[in-house]
Amino acid sequence: MDCPLKDNLKTFTVSTPALPEGGYPVVIGSGFLGRLRAALKEQFAGRMGFVITDRSLVQAGHLDRFLGGSQMGVYVIDPPGEVSKTMETLTSILEAMESCFLGRDTLVIALGGGTVGDIAGFAAAVFKRGVPVVHIPTTTISQADSSIGGKTGVDSTRSKNAFGVFWHPAAVYMDTETLQTLDEVQYRAGLAESIKHAAIADAGFFAWLEKNADLLLKRDPAVLEHLACQNCRIKASVVMEDPLEKNRRRVLNYGHTIGHALEALSGYSLLHGQAVAIGMIAAGRIEKEMGLVGDDRLERIEALLTKLGLATRAAGTYPPQKILELLKLDKKSVGRRPRFVLLEKLGSVLCRDGQWALEVPEEIVEKVLVRLADTV
Amino acid sequence: MDCPLKDNLKTFTVSTPALPEGGYPVVIGSGFLGRLRAALKEQFAGRMGFVITDRSLVQAGHLDRFLGGSQMGVYVIDPPGEVSKTMETLTSILEAMESCFLGRDTLVIALGGGTVGDIAGFAAAVFKRGVPVVHIPTTTISQADSSIGGKTGVDSTRSKNAFGVFWHPAAVYMDTETLQTLDEVQYRAGLAESIKHAAIADAGFFAWLEKNADLLLKRDPAVLEHLACQNCRIKASVVMEDPLEKNRRRVLNYGHTIGHALEALSGYSLLHGQAVAIGMIAAGRIEKEMGLVGDDRLERIEALLTKLGLATRAAGTYPPQKILELLKLDKKSVGRRPRFVLLEKLGSVLCRDGQWALEVPEEIVEKVLVRLADTV
Repeated sequence: MDCPLKDNLKTFTVSTPALPEGGYPVVIGSGFLGRLRAALKEQFAGRMGFVITDRSLVQAGHLDRFLGGSQMGVYVIDPPGEVSKTMETLTSILEAMESCFLGRDTLVIALGGGTVGDIAGFAAAVFKRGVPVVHIPTTTISQADSSIGGKTGVDSTRSKNAFGVFWHPAAVYMDTETLQTLDEVQYRAGLAESIKHAAIADAGFFAWLEKNADLLLKRDPAVLEHLACQNCRIKASVVMEDPLEKNRRRVLNYGHTIGHALEALSGYSLLHGQAVAIGMIAAGRIEKEMGLVGDDRLERIEALLTKLGLATRAAGTYPPQKILELLKLDKKSVGRRPRFVLLEKLGSVLCRDGQWALEVPEEIVEKVLVRLADTV
Repeated sequence: MDCPLKDNLKTFTVSTPALPEGGYPVVIGSGFLGRLRAALKEQFAGRMGFVITDRSLVQAGHLDRFLGGSQMGVYVIDPPGEVSKTMETLTSILEAMESCFLGRDTLVIALGGGTVGDIAGFAAAVFKRGVPVVHIPTTTISQADSSIGGKTGVDSTRSKNAFGVFWHPAAVYMDTETLQTLDEVQYRAGLAESIKHAAIADAGFFAWLEKNADLLLKRDPAVLEHLACQNCRIKASVVMEDPLEKNRRRVLNYGHTIGHALEALSGYSLLHGQAVAIGMIAAGRIEKEMGLVGDDRLERIEALLTKLGLATRAAGTYPPQKILELLKLDKKSVGRRPRFVLLEKLGSVLCRDGQWALEVPEEIVEKVLVRLADTV
């Protein structure tokens, strides 16, 4: 499907063999949100749109900008954020769609950040056994990461993204202008996923992030567009190789094994990006303990995180034993033993015997976790 | 995957192009339930089993027979039946799986009828973004229909199977001996799906059902095994051609458009098979109103249903306007206009312009619905 927007926008195509359609476009640009609804109407002619968004998007005026006065079914997640990413919210959204008498000819439109995208993708996947979804990510984290790749899900009472499916979007539209209204803490937290992409896949991109840190913090439009394109390129290339995360795609979980556990333990007061930042430091220390580090990558990651205003220490109470318990629930675990993605060097991931997520002796994990708690 | 049971069992293979594994076996026999757990342990070595069943299966002793004293995570749906087929039950099952610290190396085992299979398949599809499920159908309806084909789902507060996904099982094991303990009303209701299969696909099978009606009611073991094999053959051939119900598979919805609406309107006091029986009669009358019938098929279907103890009239209050409203929510609806599967003759479905579910003028639907209500 072509993007009918007339702007001079950058378009990537994410092709995955799992998709009968062959792939989906990711369109990146600035300031097109107000013209997007008409474009979608053309692109998905005959489908009934249903928007899933959250209160912060409404307050920032983005929902009105998108709707442009037109009538459409809308569900507003409230409160915004991870606390609402539950089976209860999913159920409530699905029932709202039913009460609009929607059918298989629905188009779900996810307007928002990671929570909105994850839950809207899940809702689209299970409504009438599956309807298409278009993602309009509006945060640093969702533009960098969650809107591409087809992962959907909600949290259980114990662990993050415990329930969900793979459901690839029909299209992704990233308007980097929406980042201008994002709250500072969220804005910075989302940059952690860009650092992750650079760390696992592209040392040159890492150097660019180091060089442009100040402009990033100023939300310079040109820098934001370049950032979105780089993230998209890296994420798409990994996803295309392994759409259902059988193996190689696990590299995207760098920093996420311990990150997810911290996030869940904090009751989601720690934002995903904040948790991943600490998780990357923990992974780096595991690499050191295992004698895998012969360069200054941990120091450079730590310095970049700090420069971008991300904490590298767990400022809270996270008993190592509780973290270890949660690690068993991690989706990469095999036989209840957690696995970790580790770097080979800045820009590439360590692969052993064809595996991209590796078992680490429990005493090393515990040692690193104790230090994580010690340094509070 | 081979079935390691040593019995002389009949095995069908359902192959679907959507499955990377190519397909799954459907094993049919009598009296092997007590040996199945050991066979699954061999077939799915390294996976942690989790059984989803319901109270009636526990009371009939089938759960104990399957477990044979071994320890395994178990969730018992209570009360049994359609009233429990909700997002709330699904959530409760998923949380129970989390509390057993299960991971992606789980094997979900669905032991029960249609409700158990539909909800267990859904749970397997969304737990950690998907784990395999084995179906052990124990009712006439689930052995005839729901255990094959990968449809999973739960009901909304308004409509049947509103939410779900396609998730093909890893294997299906039908022990026809489990039908001996089935309650008489449920037993008979489930036979409606066999009549449906015969009506849409095999006039010879229809004649066999007419001839063996008495033996069916006596639950003759040889007749039950032949019944299971015929149903499996017909269902599998349709599903293999169109695994995701893009078109041809809709023939399996014969009698289901109005059937689902009646079922939902009754608050599920009407069993699925009972509703489909009335739905088939309604479809036959629509065919008559549209001038499509030049034979005695409606009379033969009505006579066979009656002989097998199934009502062909809606004994309850089902206002036509309420049914029409619900028809708009049917998954086959396009632009809120319901579509119907209609017979060409006994044993084959009417196809027009490549479509197997056809639009019917609303006045004809209404006329038939009024008569359905009149004849109470």
